[in-house]
This record gives sequence, structure tokens and C-alpha cells, in this order.
Amino acid sequence: MRRLLSLADLPGDALDALLDRAAAMKTESPDPSLLLGRQIALLFLNPSLRTRTSMELAAKSLGAEVVSLTPGQDAWKLETEPGAVMDGDKAEHVIDAVRALGEMAHLVGVRTFSGMTSFDEDRTEPVLSTIAAAARVPIVNMESALDHPLQALADLLTLRETCGNDLRGVPVTLTWAPHPRPLPMAVGAAFLRGAARMGMDVRVAAPEGFTPPDFLIEEARGLLPGAGDVTVTDDQAAAVRGSRAVYAKAWAAPALLGDADAGAAARTANSGWRIDKDLMALGDDAVFLHCLPVRRNVVVTDGVLDGPRCRVYAEAGNRLHTARAALAEILGGPGS
Amino acid sequence: MRRLLSLADLPGDALDALLDRAAAMKTESPDPSLLLGRQIALLFLNPSLRTRTSMELAAKSLGAEVVSLTPGQDAWKLETEPGAVMDGDKAEHVIDAVRALGEMAHLVGVRTFSGMTSFDEDRTEPVLSTIAAAARVPIVNMESALDHPLQALADLLTLRETCGNDLRGVPVTLTWAPHPRPLPMAVGAAFLRGAARMGMDVRVAAPEGFTPPDFLIEEARGLLPGAGDVTVTDDQAAAVRGSRAVYAKAWAAPALLGDADAGAAARTANSGWRIDKDLMALGDDAVFLHCLPVRRNVVVTDGVLDGPRCRVYAEAGNRLHTARAALAEILGGPGS
Amino acid sequence: MRRLLSLADLPGDALDALLDRAAAMKTESPDPSLLLGRQIALLFLNPSLRTRTSMELAAKSLGAEVVSLTPGQDAWKLETEPGAVMDGDKAEHVIDAVRALGEMAHLVGVRTFSGMTSFDEDRTEPVLSTIAAAARVPIVNMESALDHPLQALADLLTLRETCGNDLRGVPVTLTWAPHPRPLPMAVGAAFLRGAARMGMDVRVAAPEGFTPPDFLIEEARGLLPGAGDVTVTDDQAAAVRGSRAVYAKAWAAPALLGDADAGAAARTANSGWRIDKDLMALGDDAVFLHCLPVRRNVVVTDGVLDGPRCRVYAEAGNRLHTARAALAEILGGPGS
Repeated sequence: MRRLLSLADLPGDALDALLDRAAAMKTESPDPSLLLGRQIALLFLNPSLRTRTSMELAAKSLGAEVVSLTPGQDAWKLETEPGAVMDGDKAEHVIDAVRALGEMAHLVGVRTFSGMTSFDEDRTEPVLSTIAAAARVPIVNMESALDHPLQALADLLTLRETCGNDLRGVPVTLTWAPHPRPLPMAVGAAFLRGAARMGMDVRVAAPEGFTPPDFLIEEARGLLPGAGDVTVTDDQAAAVRGSRAVYAKAWAAPALLGDADAGAAARTANSGWRIDKDLMALGDDAVFLHCLPVRRNVVVTDGVLDGPRCRVYAEAGNRLHTARAALAEILGGPGS
Repeated sequence: MRRLLSLADLPGDALDALLDRAAAMKTESPDPSLLLGRQIALLFLNPSLRTRTSMELAAKSLGAEVVSLTPGQDAWKLETEPGAVMDGDKAEHVIDAVRALGEMAHLVGVRTFSGMTSFDEDRTEPVLSTIAAAARVPIVNMESALDHPLQALADLLTLRETCGNDLRGVPVTLTWAPHPRPLPMAVGAAFLRGAARMGMDVRVAAPEGFTPPDFLIEEARGLLPGAGDVTVTDDQAAAVRGSRAVYAKAWAAPALLGDADAGAAARTANSGWRIDKDLMALGDDAVFLHCLPVRRNVVVTDGVLDGPRCRVYAEAGNRLHTARAALAEILGGPGS
Repeated sequence: MRRLLSLADLPGDALDALLDRAAAMKTESPDPSLLLGRQIALLFLNPSLRTRTSMELAAKSLGAEVVSLTPGQDAWKLETEPGAVMDGDKAEHVIDAVRALGEMAHLVGVRTFSGMTSFDEDRTEPVLSTIAAAARVPIVNMESALDHPLQALADLLTLRETCGNDLRGVPVTLTWAPHPRPLPMAVGAAFLRGAARMGMDVRVAAPEGFTPPDFLIEEARGLLPGAGDVTVTDDQAAAVRGSRAVYAKAWAAPALLGDADAGAAARTANSGWRIDKDLMALGDDAVFLHCLPVRRNVVVTDGVLDGPRCRVYAEAGNRLHTARAALAEILGGPGS
């Protein structure tokens, strides 16, 4: 592995090996000198709790030195448009920031969100692809316009712990959920890619108007290893019935990204999609997954979150182990 | 010690042992591998200079890995109300943040201030108690609505260095001081608890209207070990007379918390309570203490702060040694 | 070296030795235990990407523990005026912050910008000199009103790599460049001092009204070691002709610091000073230098920045090696 932009870039056996390594690092504390003398810079263009914590602690616990930067707060506001005449309020181009960091660090992690104008635009990953092209050191995607591979790795490790290492054919529901704000598709898209690559039976449930873009469903189907399936429905209960896990995530209505009022009305009209115990009971002893942060009692009830089948905290904890595995694979050399 | 929420939770001998350990760590550099392989997450819901510096450096110098998070800046804004329907601007519940951090770290430090609506409400520690109930790992209180045990530990270590290890019966004044803003009682309350637990002769001086709530005075008296006393006066000079130390701290008028104008007027009316050399001269070769940050020439004059009896910098430095001792006690195991 | 406030404080041979040490640390990884047990606090009163990254990674890679603070964001807003009656919005005086940090750390780095009212005032370094007088531990200037020695060290190391270790008589142009905002002179002044101290043939090019203050030119001339020269011109092309390096930097028109509209008009009137390939071609196979962050296509064209003679990324990378050398000199003891 030379970088980590998307799980879609990883062949199935490489993904399995990465998850095996994460599981091993969870069982037995990893070698604290594995990445000694390696420097890592993490660039957060958006807020983060789990990603910052897991990446910082993963790097430090393997012996690497790490610095975290938050442009617009402790560092300069960054321009992301290629070719821009920079006469506005942004002091530095992300190209220059990443190149400069790459001269001081052996790996640069970058977090940058969707522009929230169009999922078709997000599909081109305008910022991440600019960064990846400019960088001279490995880049790790710490969430981008339409992907979040580090989150998906933790999701898959949690699913393995629940359903066994062979996830082929295991039914899982990715369900849309209500939210007070329009959100990007990054987490949902990353989970789709990862679950499809593992050959799961992925059921995507979303109300009318919130169905993920066709290109994403097609991409996920293209990642299936000859097992599993990716299906789409607007019947939440039907999707959950028999599922071993329910992954809840809010995202904006693709066609309403430019219309705040219509988007809000559409989300409110579907507030009944909130996950509760009755819905969960339709699953096959299903566990509840979510990337966090989560809007309690909007996305999901307190009862589910604080109940016995909730795995969101274990899932968050797995961010540490999967981050360690990813950093070790990229920076640790072949024998490590 | 399984956690550190308040010095009131510590029996007198445990508090003595903790201060002994801090003093020993100040004399001789502590074992840099004592907390190797331990991860620590620090959650700052309010700004901090000394607490962040001392906790980060303490953890690192003992071999632990540490990450600091500032919700609302580098991490998500946090909801603190239990059972909230989270449809506003707060992306994550503090319960979930702390549980998630607890899956990645062996100890979570939390800093969260008073709501400044009522000291009676602060007394219930609404946020800290929610966090402590939700957490599955040790919690360290890095300042809460009505407590600041890490600060009080450094205060007591500084008093020991000035007056000897046995503080029983030693006269000390905690005096209210003017300030441009209404402030919480956390630091004053923590000092009261700590000084009472050590059996000091604690004199609380405050102008009419600024007397600390009765429940706090009663709580402090309940902590006295059969020596010392806690008395209250509105005569600043009488309190300081014969004191070995003067601890200055501003706090809001309890009855005026909801009335900004009346509170400001009451503070201004008592601007003469500013500590100066004449007041200090009434003490028994008294040293000046303050938690910092301090409003120069409002709380206390430059002359006192820059003079020979000022101990506020040593007091700040003791934050490092007491933080080391606290982390070592909680995470270092019985034999450490 | 007991501290690092300005390269002007360093005799020529000390500066040479510091650059030698940085070059050696770049060739061979430095001893990771050189600064074991040393604590470092970095206080950022202004945003930073390269300085924060290089100082944090330099400290950690030598075994020191480091904490970074950003007053106004994660720490308290700081007052900088000596003798102030602090009844406004600033919670802490920089004197107290630095003294408190100095009790917990063996070295304090401080970044604080120009007040942008007058370069004559900047010349007195009002904030840095207050800090340096208050501090009881070594201070490192991480950029001040009119200096930036850590940047100049990296500039000089990059020039050595391009032109050889003996820089005496080597022609270099420091040229003013357009910018949407009025900027301080700190980087330009630091480069002037450093290049003069090395005995370079320094040509300062600036349009009418943007000529650096006389006191700065005189100061630089005073640093010449009997070789080189410092000359001033308003003919950009003439300066660049035959130069081995072109260092571009924007700064405000000294006489227009108090007049935002006139300053903006003057900068716009000289937008033709933007560095492009035609200008660079006048040099003697000249390399392009800039401290970063840089406004692409305002200060300099994409063509120059992305072209083969651009050294700004190597220059940024040299921040790490020169920071290591500076920290090692100050904290590493005589035998290190």
C-alpha cells in the first residue's frame, strides 16, 4: 500500500490482510518502535474527534511523531481551486501546504468535506485529487467529498467481530436517517464500497428523493467479488428484516442540494425514518452501527444507542486499531 | 485512586500521599516509562493554558500518548443535556464523545465550565456527573462547574513549600477580588475543599453580596480533619491579618447571576478589594497565590505580582508535578 | 546560544556553525534522545503551518516533549501592553503566560505579529522584548513584529545548497511583490539580516513608496562581514539581472500603514511586480525562493512556482532541519 484514498483501490485480499492486521493489533499491543523516526502531518480542513484521536494515538503508539493542523484556526485558510488568482481571504493554496508538509513529513493525512453543491461534482473528488496529484509523499484520506476509507475499515472490523471474518452473503442494511442538516454522502459511500468489496448482501434503504446516485450503486456493484449484492429500496422495514446489522446515516437529497428549504422539508417529511427498537427488532439479532457523531433522538433513539445491541462505541474504538494497521502498511515497510 | 473528580472524594491520607508523590516527582525526574503504552484523551470544552500544558507535558513525560481536543474548534460542538432531541447546532452528545474516547484511551480528562445561571445548579455538576456516569474509563476533572481539583493540588503543594508539610492550623485567606466579568466559583470552591481537608485555618473574605453559598461553607467544614476552621467575613483586612498566604479569586455575586447589570455594578462598587502591597503587609510574611490567568491591576497590582512574596509562577509550575502524580496514581498501577 | 531572538544577535561564525549543524542533521538523522526529558512550550499568537509543523516535529524527533498553544482559540486571549489595567476582553497578560509556561517548560517559543501601525514601532519589538524580559527560560522567536530568524535560517540553508557554503559576494535579489493585504516586514527584514551577515551581494528591489525603512538597510549593512553589499533600487529587472536567487516577499508601504485605501491603491498600481518566468530568466540560472504561504498568481505565477527553478518546497523542508539545529544548540548542552 502506497497511500489510502479509497477502499475501492484495494483488491479484496489486500483489504482482508489489512483487517487481519488491525485485528491482530487489537489483540496484542503493536510494536511501539515500528514507525520510529517517521513524521506524520495531519491536515484537518474540517472538524474531527474520532479521526484526529485515532490517527494521533495510532501514530504515536507506533513510535511516529505527528503534528495536527487546523487551517483557518491554528494554520492559514487554504485555497483549493487549481489555477486560482489568490486575491481573496485564503492565504495559502492546498497544493503548497501539502507539498511543504511533504518535505517535513513522510505521510500527510487530509480531511476535506464535500462542497455540497452536487454529488456528481463530489464524485470527481476535486480537492482530494488535487492534493494527491501535488503530493510527493503518501496521502491518507481522512474523509473527502465522497469517501471515508478509515471509517469504513473500522465498520468492517466491527462487522467481522459480530458476524465472523467471512462476510460474504451476510445481510446488512445501510439506511438513510433524518437529520437537521443536509449532509454529504462520504460515510455512506465508503461503507457501500467496503461492504460490497467484502461480498456482503448490502441493502440500501432510503425514502423517495434520498436514493443514492446511480453511479455510486453501480460502482459498489462493480466491487462485488462474485458474492453478495447491492440492492436499493424505499421500504426501510423490508431492508432491515433479516439483516445482521443496521448502519444508519443521514445524507442530503441529491436533487435538492441547491435548495435549502426544499431539502429541509424533505428531511422533515421523513422524520419517521428515525431508528428505534421496533425497527431494530425486525433484524436477525441485528447490531446497530453509526460512524458518530450522531444526533440522538433524531437519527436514532436513546433506547437503541444505550441498548445491548449498539456497537457504535466498539466501532469508534476500532478506528484506533484500523488506523494503526493502515499507517503500518503504508510506512512500516514490507517486512513489518 | 480510580478517577479524580473532586478533592472532597479523597481521604486526608490519600491527599497527603498524592502531595508527597508530587513533591518527590519535583525533586527527582519521574520514570519516563511509567505510563508507556497508555493513551490519554483531553477534552477541552473551554479554553486553557496551564491545564492543557501541564496535563500534556505530564502525560508525555511519563511515556503516555496524549491527544487534546477542543470541541467547537477542532472537534464537534457537544450537547450536554441528557435525553436531548439533538436538532440544533450541536453535532454530538458529550456522552457519546466520552464513550468513544474511552474506547481509544485509558483515561479521559474533561474541562467544562459553569452554566452561570445558578451556583445551586452548579452544585449538581450537571455536565461532569453526566460524563462520569457515561464513561467506562477513569475521568479526570480538568475544571468543572464548581470544582478544579488539579488546581487545588498545585495550590496545596505550593502552600506546603511555603509553610511546611503539616498545614493544620495554618491561617490562610481566600479573598474575593474585583474582575470585569462574572466568574464561576470553581477555583475558590476547590481551594476551600483542599485547604479544609488539610485542616488549615481558612478565612473566606468577600464583600456583602459575594459571600460564597452556605452549602459550600458547610461542605468545607465537613471536610475538616478535627483541626482548622472555615470562617467567613466581609472584612478583608481582618482576614488577611496574620495569614501566611493570601489566595485571591474573583467570583460572581451568587444572587445576581441572572442580572448582568446589577452584577457589574456590584463588582465595580467593590473595586477597592483589589489586592495591593498595603493589604499584603497585614499578613504574617504572607505569600500571594492565584490560579492564573489574572487581570493585572484589577484583581491585583503589578507591585504584588512582580514582588518578592508572589508565588503564582511556582504555583503554575506545580501544576506539572501534581498532574504527573495524579496520572501516575490513576494509571500507574499499585506498585508504581 | 542561550536564546534565538534575531540572527543579528549571532556572530558570523556562530551562524555558520548553526547552518553546518542543520546540514549535518539533514544528511544523517539526528540522535532521537538528544533532548530527552526536555519540555518545550510553543505559544502561537498568530496562525502558522510551517513554523508549527517544523518546531513540533523537530522537538519530538530529538526526544523533547512539546505542547502548542493558540491563545484566543484553545487558550486565553493575551494582553501585551506593560502596565495595562486589564478590564477589557483579554484574560491574561503575556508576561504571566510566558512565566507560567517557563515553570513547566525548558524553552518557550513565541509567535507574535506586527501591530501594523508603524515599522518604527515594530523596530522596538514591543511584544517580543516584553516577553524576553519577563522570561526565565530561553525564548525562541517564531516570528515577531520585524524578525523571523527561523525562516531566515532555512532560507540561508537553501541558498547554501544552491550556491555553495561560502555565500560571500553571491548576488541575490529580495524583491517586493504584490499582495491583496498589507503585510509586515518581518520575513524580509530577517532575510536581509541573514544574507548580509553571510556577506552576500543583496539587492533590495521595491517600487516607489515600498522601499524598506532606512534603519533596516543601515542595520543590514552593519552586519556585513567585510564582504558583500546591501543596495536598494526601484528597478526590479536590474536587480534580478545576474542574481543567483530571487526572494519574493510582499510588505506594506511604510508611509501608508495607517491608510488602508491608499495602501491598497499603491499595491494595485504595482501589480506588475508579480514574479513570472520572464523576470526569472534575467537571473543567472536563478532559483525562486519564498517563505510561504504564497498568493499564487498574485505574488508569483503558477509557472514559476511549479517550474524547475522553484526551491520553495525544499526551503520549507529546511525549516525542519534548521529548527532541529536551533533547539539542539539552545537545549542540548555544550557537548551535544
